Amino acid sequence: MTSFDFTLAQLAEKVGAKVLGDESARISGLATIQSARSSEISFLSNPVYEKYLPQTNAGAVILAESMVEKCPVNVLVHPNPYLAYAQLTHLWDTSPMKAGNGEGIHPSAVIHQTATLAAGVSIGAGAVLEAGAVIGENAVIGANSFIGRDSVVGAGTVLHPSVVLYHGVSIGERCIIHSGVVIGSDGFGFAPDKGRWAKVAQLGGVVIGDDVEIGANTAIDRGALDNTVIENGVKLDNQIQIAHNVRVGENTAMAACCAVAGSTSIGKNCIIGGASGIAGHLVIADQVHITAMTMVIKSLTEPGVYSSGTGVQPNAKWRKSIARLRQLDQMAGRIKALEKKLKDSD
Amino acid sequence: MTSFDFTLAQLAEKVGAKVLGDESARISGLATIQSARSSEISFLSNPVYEKYLPQTNAGAVILAESMVEKCPVNVLVHPNPYLAYAQLTHLWDTSPMKAGNGEGIHPSAVIHQTATLAAGVSIGAGAVLEAGAVIGENAVIGANSFIGRDSVVGAGTVLHPSVVLYHGVSIGERCIIHSGVVIGSDGFGFAPDKGRWAKVAQLGGVVIGDDVEIGANTAIDRGALDNTVIENGVKLDNQIQIAHNVRVGENTAMAACCAVAGSTSIGKNCIIGGASGIAGHLVIADQVHITAMTMVIKSLTEPGVYSSGTGVQPNAKWRKSIARLRQLDQMAGRIKALEKKLKDSD
Amino acid sequence: MTSFDFTLAQLAEKVGAKVLGDESARISGLATIQSARSSEISFLSNPVYEKYLPQTNAGAVILAESMVEKCPVNVLVHPNPYLAYAQLTHLWDTSPMKAGNGEGIHPSAVIHQTATLAAGVSIGAGAVLEAGAVIGENAVIGANSFIGRDSVVGAGTVLHPSVVLYHGVSIGERCIIHSGVVIGSDGFGFAPDKGRWAKVAQLGGVVIGDDVEIGANTAIDRGALDNTVIENGVKLDNQIQIAHNVRVGENTAMAACCAVAGSTSIGKNCIIGGASGIAGHLVIADQVHITAMTMVIKSLTEPGVYSSGTGVQPNAKWRKSIARLRQLDQMAGRIKALEKKLKDSD
Repeated sequence: MTSFDFTLAQLAEKVGAKVLGDESARISGLATIQSARSSEISFLSNPVYEKYLPQTNAGAVILAESMVEKCPVNVLVHPNPYLAYAQLTHLWDTSPMKAGNGEGIHPSAVIHQTATLAAGVSIGAGAVLEAGAVIGENAVIGANSFIGRDSVVGAGTVLHPSVVLYHGVSIGERCIIHSGVVIGSDGFGFAPDKGRWAKVAQLGGVVIGDDVEIGANTAIDRGALDNTVIENGVKLDNQIQIAHNVRVGENTAMAACCAVAGSTSIGKNCIIGGASGIAGHLVIADQVHITAMTMVIKSLTEPGVYSSGTGVQPNAKWRKSIARLRQLDQMAGRIKALEKKLKDSD
Repeated sequence: MTSFDFTLAQLAEKVGAKVLGDESARISGLATIQSARSSEISFLSNPVYEKYLPQTNAGAVILAESMVEKCPVNVLVHPNPYLAYAQLTHLWDTSPMKAGNGEGIHPSAVIHQTATLAAGVSIGAGAVLEAGAVIGENAVIGANSFIGRDSVVGAGTVLHPSVVLYHGVSIGERCIIHSGVVIGSDGFGFAPDKGRWAKVAQLGGVVIGDDVEIGANTAIDRGALDNTVIENGVKLDNQIQIAHNVRVGENTAMAACCAVAGSTSIGKNCIIGGASGIAGHLVIADQVHITAMTMVIKSLTEPGVYSSGTGVQPNAKWRKSIARLRQLDQMAGRIKALEKKLKDSD
Repeated sequence: MTSFDFTLAQLAEKVGAKVLGDESARISGLATIQSARSSEISFLSNPVYEKYLPQTNAGAVILAESMVEKCPVNVLVHPNPYLAYAQLTHLWDTSPMKAGNGEGIHPSAVIHQTATLAAGVSIGAGAVLEAGAVIGENAVIGANSFIGRDSVVGAGTVLHPSVVLYHGVSIGERCIIHSGVVIGSDGFGFAPDKGRWAKVAQLGGVVIGDDVEIGANTAIDRGALDNTVIENGVKLDNQIQIAHNVRVGENTAMAACCAVAGSTSIGKNCIIGGASGIAGHLVIADQVHITAMTMVIKSLTEPGVYSSGTGVQPNAKWRKSIARLRQLDQMAGRIKALEKKLKDSD
């Protein structure tokens, strides 16, 4: 973190908070509530960390109104401390990979003569842009990335190093695409043909909206005929698999290692927990919350929280549970027999 | 899709179908049954989409004999509409990454003097070929890919951008390897040594047959002593993990995000659903079908369909199921006690 | 494998074993017990393979004392045959990617003038080193890898081709980082803001200790405020996801496709089976062993073996199990009713 610093009054104004305490206190960084020093500001939103509040050495803490009395130091009062914290993080973000970072075109980049580059574009070393590629204003293409033929990267979008866009992929504005992401690879389409597989050429593309973030090593396949679609504001974490012709609705967030099979449509404002799997040709309603590692094998037509799986147990107990699970049918039969017997004896 | 077009008679001949209707109708592309226009041909194989047939605006539909009466437009009658569709997709496939694509050797590629390149090879910008690499006729090596020492890429095989082959990897003919794939990385082998781990150098290689397709970001480790083997015609989707010394039999298809642990042997013509895990040192018979997200912890010696996992439920019901699952042992005891009691009272 | 060869006496000395048989026998390679020829040495540690011992054609076998009598050929007696084997593998390891491999700096690498390269460093073709990068003695940076601003690679560490380190990542000495690994990508942090997501800039870094190995296509996110930490001697397999602010303790080994959610702390000397998921904000004690595909949704405070999941069944039986699982609550009610009835009738 840099030593760039602000007064509490300045920070409060940036996030629309009220200062309780010394408005002129100088803050040069952000830190967790247990490690913050007097020059740093912290925040409290997860109740798990409330226990650290009385002893904090932070210069100030961003708090909801209800927590103010427990805080021994300066406070920024804000109805949503986590949001205020999110806004402040950008003051101290020193990442070199930002829209309009002014690095220009590296001479080792290989750019086809028919590619179009808007003003303020940065292209890293070893990046390759194929014929017809279009890069919007202030966009950043990381080193060793590949932009396939006729693919489009919107204004203000950042591709970190080693991203691959196949041909005919369109990415909106202000997106962040992390390293190792592959977009537009062939969907998994094969027709059985006398014990062998005949490839179905994947003729669709991928369309990604604005303000989308895609985590490291995630893969999004191109559509078979129509496009695969990721709508505005979607956040995908690392190592996710999006199959052909999936649609992910606006502002849905999906944690790492999820897999969504072909032609499934996920609604808006859903939250999908990590390592969940969603089978193909399903429809998931808006505002569905799926907890981590859930196995979704049917459509979910109503908003709500959904789960599956058996949580962790000591191995010996787990072995018994699993053995019993396989006896359930027989157990059900025994209950029925008992019921019959008791009824007969009535 | 291009405007390249064909008569229905021409298309019928290509796939061995019979035309019902106007043989001279011109078709310039493929589309889904619900979106096709009169210049496009569609197909019906998944019954889920049958409801769209009566209203389709397609120029023609590929159908099985039994469906012909329900179709309001021209028909190509074919016993396997999905296969006929698969064959037609290649007429309109405009992907630039095809065997013999004629792009030649990009001047920025770094090719060791002892590498061997057959006729018609294309090598993308920034690709690196180490000593002894051998690239077969008309093969395509994508931009920024890496071919390790003495590795072999067969004739007609396409590596998309950013593929890594370590040293001593052999890939057959007419394969398609998608971006982000890593083949030949070290297997996960360590010997415990007083609380630390001693690395087992991985001395085997990887041998991949002909007509294999491997999806984006899949990883296949090299063998510990013998090779890891992927046989002819295998199709691996994205984000799959193949550990050292695994063997995947001919024409087996594995959906995305599966993981196969070390030394397991999978038979021929298996279908492995997405996100399934297969433990190490197991044998899976030919023609086994494993549904998605299955946890395979024992060998499967007979063909058939296998599954595991608990499907999705509303969270509140799931919590109850899980709590009850942990009481199963006790429930079994109570049933036994009831049975004893009833028997005693007989 | 090369034809470089040794006498049995020489091999015995290297691993601290005792020779039974011909000390002057010459050995030119390692092989499995079922395939070894008379010029090769093998080993036996997994009892599954004991059946091959009586017929082995190996020149010698590394065995525990207790197995000696069953061996028809020369023996190296060693208390831990797998460890002795691990040590011998390095004699025949011909991988070109080794610390101090003497390849120097490829002219196509793009190295910022403020980067620091120690003696003996190798930098592959197309690699990019940003401002302030520091590469330790004899370290190897693979082709087309990216070292972000101010990132540090310790002495003797090997990065295979196409590894990406974002800015501010620190890797210790003697590590091995496989292709496709991404370290330092943004953690998945967003604050909800009226149905949209406000990004939390990820201001922490990643600190990786000495002697760590990281498998192909694994991703490790940078911390939100503090660092993500991988301690000395940790072994991570392929396709793993480590979220922001996770800590993995010394000498813990994690098999492929695991996912660890944010801020979870895993102890030392743990073994985590493949494709397991560990939820966020948990604490896993030292010496915990989690079997494959386990769903860890609570802290594990005691050493031991832990599991979850329902193993594979034929699909028809599985369907019954799952249906019954959903009736468990009702079954429990029926048992209770029966108990009450029997009690009433007493």
